[in-house]
Amino acid sequence: SRSINLAVIPGDGIGPEVVAQGLKVLSAALPQDVKLETKEFDFGAKRYHATGETLTEDDIKALEQYDAILLGAIGDPSVPSGVLERGFLLKLRFRFDHYVNLRPSKLGPGVSTPLAGEPDIDFIVVREGTEGPYTGNGGSVRTGTPHEVATEVSVNTAYGVERVVRDAFARAQARPRKKLTLVHKNNVLSYAGHLWTNIFNKVAEEFPDVTTDYLHVDAATIFFVTQPERFDVVVTDNLFGDIITDLAAAVAGGIGLAASGNINPSRAFPSMFEPVHGSAPDIAGQGKADPTATVLSTALLLRHLGYETEAARIEEAVSADLAERGESTRSTDQIGDALAVRVAG
Amino acid sequence: SRSINLAVIPGDGIGPEVVAQGLKVLSAALPQDVKLETKEFDFGAKRYHATGETLTEDDIKALEQYDAILLGAIGDPSVPSGVLERGFLLKLRFRFDHYVNLRPSKLGPGVSTPLAGEPDIDFIVVREGTEGPYTGNGGSVRTGTPHEVATEVSVNTAYGVERVVRDAFARAQARPRKKLTLVHKNNVLSYAGHLWTNIFNKVAEEFPDVTTDYLHVDAATIFFVTQPERFDVVVTDNLFGDIITDLAAAVAGGIGLAASGNINPSRAFPSMFEPVHGSAPDIAGQGKADPTATVLSTALLLRHLGYETEAARIEEAVSADLAERGESTRSTDQIGDALAVRVAG
Ligand SMILES: CC(C)[C@H](C(=O)O)[C@@H](O)C(=O)O
Ligand SMILES: CC(C)[C@H](C(=O)O)[C@@H](O)C(=O)O
Repeated sequence: SRSINLAVIPGDGIGPEVVAQGLKVLSAALPQDVKLETKEFDFGAKRYHATGETLTEDDIKALEQYDAILLGAIGDPSVPSGVLERGFLLKLRFRFDHYVNLRPSKLGPGVSTPLAGEPDIDFIVVREGTEGPYTGNGGSVRTGTPHEVATEVSVNTAYGVERVVRDAFARAQARPRKKLTLVHKNNVLSYAGHLWTNIFNKVAEEFPDVTTDYLHVDAATIFFVTQPERFDVVVTDNLFGDIITDLAAAVAGGIGLAASGNINPSRAFPSMFEPVHGSAPDIAGQGKADPTATVLSTALLLRHLGYETEAARIEEAVSADLAERGESTRSTDQIGDALAVRVAG
Repeated sequence: SRSINLAVIPGDGIGPEVVAQGLKVLSAALPQDVKLETKEFDFGAKRYHATGETLTEDDIKALEQYDAILLGAIGDPSVPSGVLERGFLLKLRFRFDHYVNLRPSKLGPGVSTPLAGEPDIDFIVVREGTEGPYTGNGGSVRTGTPHEVATEVSVNTAYGVERVVRDAFARAQARPRKKLTLVHKNNVLSYAGHLWTNIFNKVAEEFPDVTTDYLHVDAATIFFVTQPERFDVVVTDNLFGDIITDLAAAVAGGIGLAASGNINPSRAFPSMFEPVHGSAPDIAGQGKADPTATVLSTALLLRHLGYETEAARIEEAVSADLAERGESTRSTDQIGDALAVRVAG
């Protein structure tokens, strides 16, 4: 009999609330013969305050044993900016070589968007997850003086760019429209830009049925709000991907609905799935958080582990629920229950 | 008698068409006793193809003599990406130390926006113009091989950050709402992020009447489309500013309306004013280009040179024209004429 061994990291703020609903729906979606085993980990602000630890080598070894990781959200105003981001979230992405940061945006019927009219939004962003300006490379000299110089180094390798570009081409090829847009800023960041552009053009030859396009990142933000229908699959660098996926989430119904996967396609390490939103401490513990993004993240998780039918069932349940949601103000629990019922039914 | 000595760079594509209208309106706005002297320079794709030059040392010396520069647009598909951007536009910004890249966004009545409802948009972005990832620092090794490593170095100095942050605080203080938002990514780009944040907080002490806020750049893109009213003045790094000002232009009526100033507040070098849009070669020479962004750029130019009344008159003329524009399809010339008449009357 089959089984899924899942590491669960509820985290801070609304993290535990949304993760509980994610697990509820995930369980409801699984076939009877699949055994779901979960283990909770206590990473986040509380553990940091108690022990000073964000993620130890032992933690990494422990997490390595799981098939996948479900993460709620990490972060709290009581922890200095950057400590948990770099000490936990980015550390995991780098150590588990999550080079495909997958972020779908789809605006279904009934979902409100800040855009006028009825925009047609159905694209995925493949954000590189292990390079670019996120490597922590850089430093500062004469720190704190009027002569300080601080640098940040974006590191880009042919190895790192090629694997994510190839992954994005394969994803584009598997979609009906088969279109892939590279987003970069190659007219200014020309060293990294040439690397990305050359590799993109080279890999394109292996995918002759995929239509390709290129946009500077600044222009891409314009088209996200004026012509979102022009996007099918987008591949981009770590920082550009961070920026444009928040914008994409905003136009596609808000970050309350945005799922993401930090994926190592080789499965050498467990992949991690998380809502794009943060820990939202202002509404934590009130049953107000929308668990939809976490539920959609469990669909990405199931798809990654090969449960395509179950993943699609969760996504359909969410679409159906969203279409009927209107202005109703259900609690976190109620939304989770409704989704679990739909998925099981 | 007073005079303005203006260097005019029509450039490529629609550049010459929109610049002609900009000059028309600028002349109409000036008091009788101010003598406007203009000299055209032929920078751009044509000159590059003819001579291989983008901007020589002699060119820079020549331009240095002027009170200000009015630029249309530079760029053509026949020139490899990056050549004119770095060889001309960025070179001028760096050589003339244009550390304040000023980009106002205002959505007036009658102007259509991709956002739903009636968003309230009236803010300015002060984008740093001489540092960050734009310095051209970086390189590549094993170029073109499967082992290539390409880097881009963002260079940030206390000197460079403090002067632009101070300028932004002063601009915020001069506006009714007196609010300044720093946009960065200090949870990830922590060396540059700390420098920006520390200087921002330090300079804030000198401006106790200015309300301050901080947003990560990814979150800022969300609020640009969901709550643009939360912004008054924004200060940010060169690359983040590039990205968010295109988005800002898109929501505030399109880049056809977005003006910008590349300003050296010390007046040690001439400042340069240009529409945010590019050369749009696809519609060049057809009288279809909207000259409004260039006209608004001349208002920024006049304000920089101390002609506040005339600058405001141009801005009012544009607002009034936009409010009545509707779906009318006037030519470049007709829009310029209409604005000139309003400004003169
Ligand atoms: C929290 C932060 C480090 C993170 C990032 O910048 O990648 C977040 O914004 C995201 O997009 O997952
Ligand atoms: C053309 C390009 C170099 C430029 C920039 O990146 O600054 C443009 O996008 C702008 O915003 O003025």
